[in-house]
Amino acid sequence: MYNYKTKIKLHDTDAAGLLFFANQFKIIHDAYEALLEEIGFGFGELIRNRPFFLPIVHAESDYKNPLFVGDELDIQVKVTHVGTTSFTFSYELFNQKKVLVGTAKTVHVTTDKATKQKIPLPPEMREKIEALYNT
Amino acid sequence: MYNYKTKIKLHDTDAAGLLFFANQFKIIHDAYEALLEEIGFGFGELIRNRPFFLPIVHAESDYKNPLFVGDELDIQVKVTHVGTTSFTFSYELFNQKKVLVGTAKTVHVTTDKATKQKIPLPPEMREKIEALYNT
Amino acid sequence: MYNYKTKIKLHDTDAAGLLFFANQFKIIHDAYEALLEEIGFGFGELIRNRPFFLPIVHAESDYKNPLFVGDELDIQVKVTHVGTTSFTFSYELFNQKKVLVGTAKTVHVTTDKATKQKIPLPPEMREKIEALYNT
Amino acid sequence: MYNYKTKIKLHDTDAAGLLFFANQFKIIHDAYEALLEEIGFGFGELIRNRPFFLPIVHAESDYKNPLFVGDELDIQVKVTHVGTTSFTFSYELFNQKKVLVGTAKTVHVTTDKATKQKIPLPPEMREKIEALYNT
Repeated sequence: MYNYKTKIKLHDTDAAGLLFFANQFKIIHDAYEALLEEIGFGFGELIRNRPFFLPIVHAESDYKNPLFVGDELDIQVKVTHVGTTSFTFSYELFNQKKVLVGTAKTVHVTTDKATKQKIPLPPEMREKIEALYNT
Repeated sequence: MYNYKTKIKLHDTDAAGLLFFANQFKIIHDAYEALLEEIGFGFGELIRNRPFFLPIVHAESDYKNPLFVGDELDIQVKVTHVGTTSFTFSYELFNQKKVLVGTAKTVHVTTDKATKQKIPLPPEMREKIEALYNT
Repeated sequence: MYNYKTKIKLHDTDAAGLLFFANQFKIIHDAYEALLEEIGFGFGELIRNRPFFLPIVHAESDYKNPLFVGDELDIQVKVTHVGTTSFTFSYELFNQKKVLVGTAKTVHVTTDKATKQKIPLPPEMREKIEALYNT
Repeated sequence: MYNYKTKIKLHDTDAAGLLFFANQFKIIHDAYEALLEEIGFGFGELIRNRPFFLPIVHAESDYKNPLFVGDELDIQVKVTHVGTTSFTFSYELFNQKKVLVGTAKTVHVTTDKATKQKIPLPPEMREKIEALYNT
């Protein structure tokens, strides 16, 4: 499991007074980026130096409790599936009162940058991602 | 069915060169807002004059083909479920070549602004939403 | 002058109930993108096929009247300066009551994609941009 | 002076490969929000419990060096003017190599929530903001 802490910013909210739903996806992707950086595959590295990409083919969120500007978030990220050419991350979002406010899931596939075709998850990355199962 | 046309803007994309996945949710919400306005429940009206809100409790997207800046989108919005206190919209996104590039779904519940509790979908809105089944 | 029409979306607003100030910049860039596409230099074309970029080196906005979700915008874009390696666009934003709600300005320089250095505005683009003075 | 540290996220960038200019405004507002919270006027507090707002009437940014996904930012925020009904914040953005990558400025006025009219900056807030001059 990987922990990521952040806060609801004014620009995450909308005129209904709460988090705009699409921004939950933006926020969990921040957590995912931090995790990738931690295991040596930050987006700067991926975009500039690696021959593969990890596009998202499916994403979903549930919204369980309202989030206001200034609310603190503790996001717990887990790897819940690693296949041949894909992997799945799951996210649980807790506020400053340790209440579960939302959950999310992203499914990624590995593609070759040149051919745009699906390829098996590169071994050096597979190793790092599988290691997250045990943490 | 309701049709909404838009275009991928530069700020919808990211440094990987394509649509940033969370922005598909932002874009389908634009379509949903236009639809609500068409049936007399635009967000300006909802936020200022109505005693209820329609928060999203679940959202999901699938990504089937890449979207670049400048790509045109034709979004087809359908009501796929109307329950007592909730309703579901489904979205199909086609590019300028009429290729299906993505799909999405949003589940909404009706809540009372004052009590924050779920309430039955107000009849005048139910009528408008059910009428979308037949179009 | 170039005209661009759009609408304030829910995600353009924040929990204070009005347009979030940074989104005025996002919206005027939408107008600028539409203008560039009109003159044959849309961002899809620029990013994929042209050897130069047009990065913004300065941007500013004034906010004169509140904007709510659902408000309609008529944005009038003008070229106000064309130099050797730079040009300036100015924007006036009017709401559905024809009230001026904001103004903005963006200053762009021409850079070579390979060397990242400033270069003179390519003649074929200079011609198109200067032609906007007269419209 | 107030220091705020953050990182360029993938969603801050666009298909040209760098920070999307409007997101520099989003990011400096994050710094401003953190500062306000530090002095007891966080947006949660302002929106829910205070009779005044602090809308931005002018904002500007300069862009001096490119920012990539993963770049670290150290933002130095200063109060550069406090008037009767307005105040100005200035921002300097440095990357992980301590290079100045951008600057920005926001001008705020104090308005009464009920009447929407300009009012003098409330004394308890003036005191906190003026104290920032000396830090």
